[in-house]
Amino acid sequence: MAIKQVVYEPLTTDTARELSKNLQLFNQNDQLSAVEIGDGNLNLVFRIQNVINEKSYIIKQALPYAKVVGTSWPLTLDRSRIEGESLKRTYQLVPELTPKVYYSDSTLAVTVMDDLSHLIILRKGLIAGNQYPKLAKDIGIFLAHTLFFNSDFGLNQQDKKIQSSQFINPELCKITEDLVFTDPFFDHDTNNIDDTLKLFVTETIWADPALKLEVAKLKQAFLTKGETLVHGDLHTGSIFVSEEETIVIDPEFAYYGPFGFDVGAFIANLILNYLAQDVHLAVQPQKKAEFQRYLLDVITETWQVFEQEFTTLWQEHPQDAFMNVDGYLEQTLQTIFSDAIGFAGCKVIRRMIGLAGVEDVESITDVNLRNQVKKNALTLGKKLIVQRNELTSIQKLVKVVSDHA
Amino acid sequence: MAIKQVVYEPLTTDTARELSKNLQLFNQNDQLSAVEIGDGNLNLVFRIQNVINEKSYIIKQALPYAKVVGTSWPLTLDRSRIEGESLKRTYQLVPELTPKVYYSDSTLAVTVMDDLSHLIILRKGLIAGNQYPKLAKDIGIFLAHTLFFNSDFGLNQQDKKIQSSQFINPELCKITEDLVFTDPFFDHDTNNIDDTLKLFVTETIWADPALKLEVAKLKQAFLTKGETLVHGDLHTGSIFVSEEETIVIDPEFAYYGPFGFDVGAFIANLILNYLAQDVHLAVQPQKKAEFQRYLLDVITETWQVFEQEFTTLWQEHPQDAFMNVDGYLEQTLQTIFSDAIGFAGCKVIRRMIGLAGVEDVESITDVNLRNQVKKNALTLGKKLIVQRNELTSIQKLVKVVSDHA
Repeated sequence: MAIKQVVYEPLTTDTARELSKNLQLFNQNDQLSAVEIGDGNLNLVFRIQNVINEKSYIIKQALPYAKVVGTSWPLTLDRSRIEGESLKRTYQLVPELTPKVYYSDSTLAVTVMDDLSHLIILRKGLIAGNQYPKLAKDIGIFLAHTLFFNSDFGLNQQDKKIQSSQFINPELCKITEDLVFTDPFFDHDTNNIDDTLKLFVTETIWADPALKLEVAKLKQAFLTKGETLVHGDLHTGSIFVSEEETIVIDPEFAYYGPFGFDVGAFIANLILNYLAQDVHLAVQPQKKAEFQRYLLDVITETWQVFEQEFTTLWQEHPQDAFMNVDGYLEQTLQTIFSDAIGFAGCKVIRRMIGLAGVEDVESITDVNLRNQVKKNALTLGKKLIVQRNELTSIQKLVKVVSDHA
Repeated sequence: MAIKQVVYEPLTTDTARELSKNLQLFNQNDQLSAVEIGDGNLNLVFRIQNVINEKSYIIKQALPYAKVVGTSWPLTLDRSRIEGESLKRTYQLVPELTPKVYYSDSTLAVTVMDDLSHLIILRKGLIAGNQYPKLAKDIGIFLAHTLFFNSDFGLNQQDKKIQSSQFINPELCKITEDLVFTDPFFDHDTNNIDDTLKLFVTETIWADPALKLEVAKLKQAFLTKGETLVHGDLHTGSIFVSEEETIVIDPEFAYYGPFGFDVGAFIANLILNYLAQDVHLAVQPQKKAEFQRYLLDVITETWQVFEQEFTTLWQEHPQDAFMNVDGYLEQTLQTIFSDAIGFAGCKVIRRMIGLAGVEDVESITDVNLRNQVKKNALTLGKKLIVQRNELTSIQKLVKVVSDHA
């Protein structure tokens, strides 16, 4: 094994290659290529490959700062430890949906894992209009197994408390608390709003006290509902896919939070792609109808698989004496669902006016068309938040999305 | 300062006296008396006193086991660290209501604090029919300040997460999860039920699925709602009182839990004393009416002071951008109140059929009279749990208690 570094320093392609040899991922005499393929905002990502047999690994290293739209702020390296711990725990539960971790070092803030270059990031696949037949089932399974087995329903309740202490994640939670649950709902300087949209945002979002009260409750749920170990950032950019495979990456935001949070994040990003396709596929009405139908089917099937699988786990692996009480499972699923819809609404809104947009929408070059999509998204997001307790079935949710002009 | 012990060993009166001198609580030549005054079930409690000027301190040491009704099981010494940390944090917030900690040592599991022998344990005072004019106001203030300033409403939200990591308390939480929220609601061998009461318990509690569903939700709240640092065991045996003073002790069960938990525990124990006075004061009907009126007034005033003080702190020390949104404070107080009533119901029930009874009721020697009080308590506890969302004001709660035959 490698000799542990005593101080942090950023890797280079040379030191990354050397680390992979020291870890005996390759033989000493193998000829290796090393390329940095990250976007450089938060992490370095090196792909190390044997040039002969093409066997390869990823070395991911956290940077001690975050760069977003030109600004930079310090960011804890502890997120690398949290990401590594979360990946390892998730691999125990759903190995086929998780990259395998071969090595991690909290001083270097390094995680060595499977190379997934043969897959595509789901967001890019959806923007290109590709369908992934296994996606909904895989994410439904992923959500059911990770959320159930890390909760008081599926994990020894004392072990759960000890596990939760390893995922105290103040700095990354703060990013979500600010950028998802707070700044977009006020005229805050981190927002990124086109001038022509500002009046609409003011009237629709900032001037609505009923909306703000509901967002306050959802934020409080994010702050205090330590129900299970959530991924914490399960958007379509955190999922690698192909026709045959689905792999969830990047759990740096993992912490003990509400069941509904990951479910809501995934649904929100499918909804955003749905709304953006109104423009992307405008000139192919038949393809548009078909693809949007597919997206709604993914939302429906994901929830149905989650619900079915969670129910099976609940019945087969109960950790709590009350789990066979009539109505408790149904009540639990209903709360997860309404929380998820509320969180989805917040995520939709923040992507339209907050610091970080989504490529699905930002790639629309015509400003008027883009703003029309954003307005649609803002009113839909608001509807999800305010009506979340009335949307008591996946069919009702999907109808609200498809009816939304 | 004392040289730290490297291994745990139980203190004796001699080593406790020596420790107090090493800590320079006394002068080397002072003549000291040392007496062990604990009940020996969970902790050793030494009172060390200067025999000349009567200056004194308490040295409390956790034992590595718990003894209850003859059985014994191992119990973490870490509870001593948690108790010490909680006392110190609480002293920052409400010094006049908290013993001062002079020294703590997590290896020895020792906490050195103020001697409160001039006060009486509230439970004993109430059983004796004494009234304490400052009690309600003091506990209302205690609850408002500790619950507010340790929550996301009153403490920096990142600091709150770090603080919560110091109060992960699996073993003592398990005692509450089992003995308050689980075993009493099933025919479990930890229960302690008079044979003549068993049929009533079976029919009223164990055979009621609607009750069990509500208890399941309250238990889930205890397991997952990490809202604030609660005392965790705020019954009338954890409060020292006199006409002039109120001091809350014994926060070994402290952890991040729901706002309503301590409020409910306090109310539950006042209710139990109320019901027991039907027997204790049966031969003095006027005194009984007067004292029961006093107990209801304490419940009312405690909540009103809490509500008023929490409101002031909310307005003057907000940590969250949403706290000035219309209706948010009212909604928060309403949730705290209904949670508190539900927790109070669970606590009332568990004291009637669970492992640990309360002296208020167990001191009734006539078994028929005692069982009548227990039946009253069980049906009232059940009512509180099931009706907690309809009891939307302190007046309604007090009416349910006083109307309860």
